[in-house]
Amino acid sequence: MNYSNNVPRKPINAIDRLTSLFSRLPGLGKKSAGRLVYHILDSDPGYARSLGEELLAFHQAIKRCSRCGSYTELNPCAICSDESREPVLCVVERAQDVRVIEESKEFGGRFHVLGGVIAPLEGVNPEDLSIGELIARVRKEEIREVILAMNPTVEGDTTALYIQKVLKNTEATITRLASGLPVGGDLEYADRLTLSRSFRGRIRM
Amino acid sequence: MNYSNNVPRKPINAIDRLTSLFSRLPGLGKKSAGRLVYHILDSDPGYARSLGEELLAFHQAIKRCSRCGSYTELNPCAICSDESREPVLCVVERAQDVRVIEESKEFGGRFHVLGGVIAPLEGVNPEDLSIGELIARVRKEEIREVILAMNPTVEGDTTALYIQKVLKNTEATITRLASGLPVGGDLEYADRLTLSRSFRGRIRM
Repeated sequence: MNYSNNVPRKPINAIDRLTSLFSRLPGLGKKSAGRLVYHILDSDPGYARSLGEELLAFHQAIKRCSRCGSYTELNPCAICSDESREPVLCVVERAQDVRVIEESKEFGGRFHVLGGVIAPLEGVNPEDLSIGELIARVRKEEIREVILAMNPTVEGDTTALYIQKVLKNTEATITRLASGLPVGGDLEYADRLTLSRSFRGRIRM
Repeated sequence: MNYSNNVPRKPINAIDRLTSLFSRLPGLGKKSAGRLVYHILDSDPGYARSLGEELLAFHQAIKRCSRCGSYTELNPCAICSDESREPVLCVVERAQDVRVIEESKEFGGRFHVLGGVIAPLEGVNPEDLSIGELIARVRKEEIREVILAMNPTVEGDTTALYIQKVLKNTEATITRLASGLPVGGDLEYADRLTLSRSFRGRIRM
């Protein structure tokens, strides 16, 4: 049956369409998406134009680095092209983790983006991640140390253990980022697992 | 002095530009803006394209209704064009308040968007708001009742008092939305029940 002639359809206008598109982004519900849309309406039209143009060109401009898997405008990326980087490889889950670590200026080596973590229940198996490429890189680039920087979650730990096993026959030392109490945190609010890790990983002063 | 030849400039790439644009939106800091950007990178390119296209056409598509001042694709807007709407006028601060009230389905009259509230310290005086137009509409449209639906803030109350005074010589009854809206709150975030109560409990001024 076709009701279209009887039931008045609510007109879908530009405000609704933009609100609906924004509300697909993480952390934005319908109300906060609407708030953004009205903010854009109240702003200078040049803002919406700039944002629109950036978005249209975005996927064209940003590629994945064929070596490390991070997002970049150049291939290979600036980090992979930098010959002065130490032969130490930091393995992360996602491309955005590269930026977080780069901004901390704590690490002067190279990166390798796995593209996720092993999670069989969600259908992510080792062969879905760039682990084969990782092994090849460790050999070819004569990597001295592999730092496993997956998130301290069950899946992150599982993945770290798996990678440790498959890299056993290489020359590289395998390390894992320390897990424990966050700086500035409060012992009272630490969860049991975090506390447990901070005890196991305690260091002599 | 020109340092540009000595100091290596950090390259500004598409990710940075988009992050910077998103972080200008209300409630989005640099971190959450970055999160959106990487979400868009991980999503289907069609999403960024749709969002980009909507934004480019947005200010062209959406205008202000010349009668009530709300945002609309048609002028006059669908509400102002609707002859069956009662001669009751709901006066709101901002265009987005029209949508909130429409969605509550509590009100079958017409709207008038003030474009703000009287706030002398911020340089907003009565003549900066569409109060002259409001008086003209109340007379011309033979409005029976004017419901003042400004936010329950100091500025909203001041504005309500001011409008009550200037509408004294018209035929319209002036009412103000009842409390029920939390003081200091924002109409945009009111839930439907609270809105409903504030409509039913409105009091004569």
